[in-house]
Amino acid sequence: MAREKLILHPDRFFDTSPKVNKIAKELYASVKNTPILSPHGHVNPVIFSDPNYKFGNPAELFIIPDHYLFRMLYSQGIPMESLGVPRIDGGPVETDPKKIWKTFADNFYLYRGTPTGIWFEYGLKEVFNIKYRLCAETAMGIYSEIDEKLKSPEFSPRALYKKFNIELLATTDAATDTLEHHKKIRDSGWNGRIIPTFRPDGVIDLSDKNWKNNIEVLAGFSKITITDYSSYINAIKNRRQYFKAMGATAADIVALYPVTEELPQQEADRIFKKALSEGASQEETNRFTAHIIMEMVRLSVEDGLVMQFHVGCYRNHNREVFEKFGPDKGCDMPLSIEFTKSLQPLLNKYGNNPGFSIICFTLDETNYSRELAPLAGHYPAMKVGPAWWFHDSINGMQRYRQQVIETAGLYNTTGFVDDTRAFLSIPARHDLSRRIDANWIAGLVAKNIITMNDGFEMIQDTAYRLAKKAYRL
Amino acid sequence: MAREKLILHPDRFFDTSPKVNKIAKELYASVKNTPILSPHGHVNPVIFSDPNYKFGNPAELFIIPDHYLFRMLYSQGIPMESLGVPRIDGGPVETDPKKIWKTFADNFYLYRGTPTGIWFEYGLKEVFNIKYRLCAETAMGIYSEIDEKLKSPEFSPRALYKKFNIELLATTDAATDTLEHHKKIRDSGWNGRIIPTFRPDGVIDLSDKNWKNNIEVLAGFSKITITDYSSYINAIKNRRQYFKAMGATAADIVALYPVTEELPQQEADRIFKKALSEGASQEETNRFTAHIIMEMVRLSVEDGLVMQFHVGCYRNHNREVFEKFGPDKGCDMPLSIEFTKSLQPLLNKYGNNPGFSIICFTLDETNYSRELAPLAGHYPAMKVGPAWWFHDSINGMQRYRQQVIETAGLYNTTGFVDDTRAFLSIPARHDLSRRIDANWIAGLVAKNIITMNDGFEMIQDTAYRLAKKAYRL
Amino acid sequence: MAREKLILHPDRFFDTSPKVNKIAKELYASVKNTPILSPHGHVNPVIFSDPNYKFGNPAELFIIPDHYLFRMLYSQGIPMESLGVPRIDGGPVETDPKKIWKTFADNFYLYRGTPTGIWFEYGLKEVFNIKYRLCAETAMGIYSEIDEKLKSPEFSPRALYKKFNIELLATTDAATDTLEHHKKIRDSGWNGRIIPTFRPDGVIDLSDKNWKNNIEVLAGFSKITITDYSSYINAIKNRRQYFKAMGATAADIVALYPVTEELPQQEADRIFKKALSEGASQEETNRFTAHIIMEMVRLSVEDGLVMQFHVGCYRNHNREVFEKFGPDKGCDMPLSIEFTKSLQPLLNKYGNNPGFSIICFTLDETNYSRELAPLAGHYPAMKVGPAWWFHDSINGMQRYRQQVIETAGLYNTTGFVDDTRAFLSIPARHDLSRRIDANWIAGLVAKNIITMNDGFEMIQDTAYRLAKKAYRL
Repeated sequence: MAREKLILHPDRFFDTSPKVNKIAKELYASVKNTPILSPHGHVNPVIFSDPNYKFGNPAELFIIPDHYLFRMLYSQGIPMESLGVPRIDGGPVETDPKKIWKTFADNFYLYRGTPTGIWFEYGLKEVFNIKYRLCAETAMGIYSEIDEKLKSPEFSPRALYKKFNIELLATTDAATDTLEHHKKIRDSGWNGRIIPTFRPDGVIDLSDKNWKNNIEVLAGFSKITITDYSSYINAIKNRRQYFKAMGATAADIVALYPVTEELPQQEADRIFKKALSEGASQEETNRFTAHIIMEMVRLSVEDGLVMQFHVGCYRNHNREVFEKFGPDKGCDMPLSIEFTKSLQPLLNKYGNNPGFSIICFTLDETNYSRELAPLAGHYPAMKVGPAWWFHDSINGMQRYRQQVIETAGLYNTTGFVDDTRAFLSIPARHDLSRRIDANWIAGLVAKNIITMNDGFEMIQDTAYRLAKKAYRL
Repeated sequence: MAREKLILHPDRFFDTSPKVNKIAKELYASVKNTPILSPHGHVNPVIFSDPNYKFGNPAELFIIPDHYLFRMLYSQGIPMESLGVPRIDGGPVETDPKKIWKTFADNFYLYRGTPTGIWFEYGLKEVFNIKYRLCAETAMGIYSEIDEKLKSPEFSPRALYKKFNIELLATTDAATDTLEHHKKIRDSGWNGRIIPTFRPDGVIDLSDKNWKNNIEVLAGFSKITITDYSSYINAIKNRRQYFKAMGATAADIVALYPVTEELPQQEADRIFKKALSEGASQEETNRFTAHIIMEMVRLSVEDGLVMQFHVGCYRNHNREVFEKFGPDKGCDMPLSIEFTKSLQPLLNKYGNNPGFSIICFTLDETNYSRELAPLAGHYPAMKVGPAWWFHDSINGMQRYRQQVIETAGLYNTTGFVDDTRAFLSIPARHDLSRRIDANWIAGLVAKNIITMNDGFEMIQDTAYRLAKKAYRL
Repeated sequence: MAREKLILHPDRFFDTSPKVNKIAKELYASVKNTPILSPHGHVNPVIFSDPNYKFGNPAELFIIPDHYLFRMLYSQGIPMESLGVPRIDGGPVETDPKKIWKTFADNFYLYRGTPTGIWFEYGLKEVFNIKYRLCAETAMGIYSEIDEKLKSPEFSPRALYKKFNIELLATTDAATDTLEHHKKIRDSGWNGRIIPTFRPDGVIDLSDKNWKNNIEVLAGFSKITITDYSSYINAIKNRRQYFKAMGATAADIVALYPVTEELPQQEADRIFKKALSEGASQEETNRFTAHIIMEMVRLSVEDGLVMQFHVGCYRNHNREVFEKFGPDKGCDMPLSIEFTKSLQPLLNKYGNNPGFSIICFTLDETNYSRELAPLAGHYPAMKVGPAWWFHDSINGMQRYRQQVIETAGLYNTTGFVDDTRAFLSIPARHDLSRRIDANWIAGLVAKNIITMNDGFEMIQDTAYRLAKKAYRL
């Protein structure tokens, strides 16, 4: 690879048809500077609670915490140790950030045509104003340039939050989280809006190995003695209230499969108690999950928290990596998912209630046209979340638009919602999605499927208004 | 929304590439005036049996009976009552058609980019010559204009049948239907061709709550005392003969899953009798369904009725709506479907018979390239039906072409077949499909995959000839 | 059909957008003359072992052995007998090659828009320099022209191998194959590189009706008395060594489903012995299959043979055709497949080993973005094979690129690998795939997703380098 200028072409990602290209540019221009709403993600709030927080070196910022990036390197036989990914047992890993950076740079060709590559280059150019593409030759120069900049106050998270034009950023937080950083942020008087999201996995998944411990913590925080199913639900309600008080507008429910089925209260109580004492069987755990999803809906109906529903991800598929490095190391794999039958109990009980809102996410794209769009195109309570995770990409977003909108309509979707641990990638992701949506809508206009007036409305909807409404921001 | 002119652009839906666009126009022009064959649908024959039949007001014509339209409004929290959809219990619903129309118009933006929106605007412009797009401001003016026109003889169903250039229209009729309207139409000497289709759900689905009653009606009509499986099949044969005598060329078999498996005659007889007396179990019902599909094929082989096979639709998913408003209210949802193993017994017994014809429809698009195209590309008896229901849309038809034709070949498909209760949408649907097919074929020509001569043949095939052949019209 | 010139347009299959078209041409030009690697296929090595081998007449060359071709004719009701496909019972079939050719020519319109049609016309023009398209009128002239040419030495398989610019061609051979033709080829001193591939179906699939017999042959060839599981595995190892000595770099493992699960050695031994004596049950056969896949991986880790893994094909779906004509008659049908859970045991045991290489093929395209790309984008040992069989087509390859690369990256795929019995179609298939890849990459360049420099690297990778690396050639 020879040294190449790093250029972000102003028309990038748009169709080359002059007619579509021109309209896409106009539509994109109309939302380029629209504020960013980020109502779902995994940024650590600690970076905002300390006004003087500094990101570490370039390897710490870009590579070590980003499983999108290092999974690709790992897939090509590069050990995670050599990328500085910390081992659970504290065993030796590469500690020289420059070596880690060099390994990444040497292999940057692997990201050709991937969203990861696109986001990374956006960050290089738009955030750090780097002049050349990353390669073996340019690696260390770019390292130094970024390293230098990261030390300046302009590159503090709070400064970048403003620079990125973010209006709201939601984190995702365990039911047992103290939300201390959210509290600090609120108390600091800073005018950024960082809100928590209630994610109760740890206390509703009976198979979580820390479940009992989490129940104790939950009891402690809620000051409710948990002895049975009823006190358990009360404790959860209590926590949801706390999250709401701290600004949360949504909960995030995660399950392997979207199977829903209400248990008789007595049976839920029995399984809960068994889980607390001797532990629940696999079969009981599954039935409890199907039930607790219904309960989480019931609580959402009561307290108004929007219910995000993320299903179909087999976590920690690679046991060796999980045991050595822990979760979130690029080893989560999608599963084939069924919604029509699975969600029927939930939708029959709560789906006709326009005051309730459930946003469904899937990694199985066959659900788009077969199940999610038809369901969301009918049930008042249901919305289809955007192309998620692996599918938050150019082709992924295009497939989503082509397979969802004709049946669900645009207004039963949520517009773009990013989902990342990497704060720096947020503007890159929104820029990409706005471009792809502008291009999609431009295609509709150019083919006379919609009018240009409709197009301008739709691009505002996808970039901002739909998320604002769906997440009740 | 400001008032906008309603324009149907002459090149609408075609690619913007000048090369493709030009060819698409030529191909479309060659079939624009080709007569319409509509060999499958759900138009009520009563509108043709009375020469002076008048459609009601605009709400009765466009909104109240069209679940494509009102499901979108309902999904956004608009009660069906406010749209005038009649309740089973006769409870109060909106009766002012102007109010209903206004609600629809106020929310017409919901249909942006949907086929429903496209069909509706086609009707406005091409049938009623409306000048402006529907919105809050134009709503009542458009209402009056349509309402006025509907009173004139030019807008009677028979007049529109001619205006739409329809050559044949098939209805779908229960095995227990008297076909009285078809008889009246034939007796009237009118030269429109309205034929029935034999759809025996009510008498072959043991789980239908009216099944026993339907069997009695069947016995009455066929004048065959039904006491066992053999007399039951004879009665069905008798009805098929009647339908044939009334012009039918096809039967329509509907099942949740395409599972087929012949039972020993004795076992079929046992289950049938049990269903008649105490009722069949769920498991027996499923096995009977797998068997009766095979029997329907056997009868088709005997009497030559083409067998349409519509599977994978979970009817009346929303129990509350079903109980309040009945079936066909936008609550039918697609299921994940398997054909390769399920159809093997059927195809092994009858699939090599070129004298038999089975046309398969699915709502699970993963079947296209994985199962339907490979099967239809081999078995002489099998054809792939067109993109169905939710997928009878711009992107849906494009996905169909891209996923079916390379493996099945065009000549193992049926060309376009609409499927609607809404008589007025028929020309809109054919116009859309002819445009999408012209555009698809133009792409093949422009990329030198086929020649222009081939293209002209193919567009005639998709618009007319394939359906004529497949349905034996 | 009137007589039409047969023209292979130099820009065929490229987008009509001038920008993409121009770049595609440049990219394609850079690999047009790159040597062909064909590391997987089903060409009979006998055609190379005899230096003077002559192909038969045009029907014998193009139609009778090519199930891609005749399945389409059969699907339209043309009996295989009339196409000269030999019956197992030796019963009468058409023997006049001219009649067979005429039937094919009369129906050549069936292949419009299919890859089969494209490959065939490429052969006509590029190999035989035919001037007109095949149709009823031109049929016999073309027949004579081809028939004449086939008699000349320029059209011997060895001469064509050179003309086609093939660098390597792998055959697929049973574990019980003598590889005598491979030996002859090597001994002949001819400098073509024809290598075998170890495909052990016959000895690892307990449901194969010749299994016991195959085990005897295996014992004979390996000179190992097979009495238990351990001696059985040793015999297989022995054969793998022989294949390696004859040039093999890969094994090819085939299974209905990719389910993997290691059995305790004792249990494997028990089932193996039971299979040898009284026969294994269906359930035992399935468990043995899940186990033996793991064993084949273990052996690959030991001996370095790359493991191809072809799953999801229901062979000989049409029993009547199978009984009359045998296997490979166009009756193999795809199944719905699950990889994430099924492959977990395999990937957990061997997937982190960068010294092992498993290449996965599927006929279920839903696996691309849902499972194969996420898995290959993480596990060092896993690669995604190219669009296979029915999907080795223009749209099929485009869907593959769009659904795999963003998540897996290009470098966890193998580039193009053809898969055919029809030697003459090999250059046609590579030409098509190079064009489709050039066009795909051109789209990335034109939309500024990658740079032109990246594009030139990627087209070399897809056309040649990735296959060379993945198959260790």
